[in-house]
Amino acid sequence: MRILGIDPGLALLGYGIIDSAGGRQQLVTYGCISTAARSPMPARLRSIYTGLSQLIGMYMPDDIAFEELFFAQNVTTGIAVAQARGAALVAAAQHTENLYEYTPLQIKQAITGYGRAEKQQMQNMVKLLLNMDAPAKPDDAADALAVAITHANCLHAKELYRIK
Amino acid sequence: MRILGIDPGLALLGYGIIDSAGGRQQLVTYGCISTAARSPMPARLRSIYTGLSQLIGMYMPDDIAFEELFFAQNVTTGIAVAQARGAALVAAAQHTENLYEYTPLQIKQAITGYGRAEKQQMQNMVKLLLNMDAPAKPDDAADALAVAITHANCLHAKELYRIK
Repeated sequence: MRILGIDPGLALLGYGIIDSAGGRQQLVTYGCISTAARSPMPARLRSIYTGLSQLIGMYMPDDIAFEELFFAQNVTTGIAVAQARGAALVAAAQHTENLYEYTPLQIKQAITGYGRAEKQQMQNMVKLLLNMDAPAKPDDAADALAVAITHANCLHAKELYRIK
Repeated sequence: MRILGIDPGLALLGYGIIDSAGGRQQLVTYGCISTAARSPMPARLRSIYTGLSQLIGMYMPDDIAFEELFFAQNVTTGIAVAQARGAALVAAAQHTENLYEYTPLQIKQAITGYGRAEKQQMQNMVKLLLNMDAPAKPDDAADALAVAITHANCLHAKELYRIK
């Protein structure tokens, strides 16, 4: 089973793709779709939609898992990120109905066994679990791989969380 | 010039299309794209994207104007509406770069000359300005027509507001 993990964002949308079989995970690819802050919002959303559609068309994931949005900072940033997530969800929903989401807490627990793990710990665990030579960069791509691994683990444990 | 006005929302996205020439506006069509609350979020966003893309393909507007989002209520509703707006913006941006947005204040002032106008006043003015037999229903469609008229007026006055 091929899993695409997504850490949604407007300036940087992180993605990570793994193949999962029999409780073992193998890295396929990872990276970011970036949009320029000087571009108008609609053009940035279109780039996210188009970039993600192409990625999905190329790698044909069975399941797609998103990191859940939650806002601590200001409302303006929140609107921007939610719009970007909307653009990404459209691209994902056109490919499959197998869409899932996980909270940052679920992801940290799945990867490190500890809900308050630090970024550094998370990245080292992702590197270890996927047999990588170095931690994935940038952070958004590492986070996306963590989402994909979390989904693989949850599938294994038969605990599925559908996006509401 | 053909203008599509949009009042973005998740359950109901209102749209209104007018033709504007020489400071006069003519109604083309109006209505809503609705999504079922029981459907999963990705399917609802896909419906908005697909429905709006079809509408745009059918009526080929020159300019598309959005009512600006602003949040008074809770964050969960805000995220949902912003995601829906993201899906709508992708559909719009694939058709044209002529995208605009107006605040509720700008729209009320453009339609009634008064920033604190009530919904009823707005709907009556939209009916009057477009020579309609009855006010547009539902409210979301009337609001979308008001956005389109606002854009037509602003074009006339050469005051353009690009979406940031």
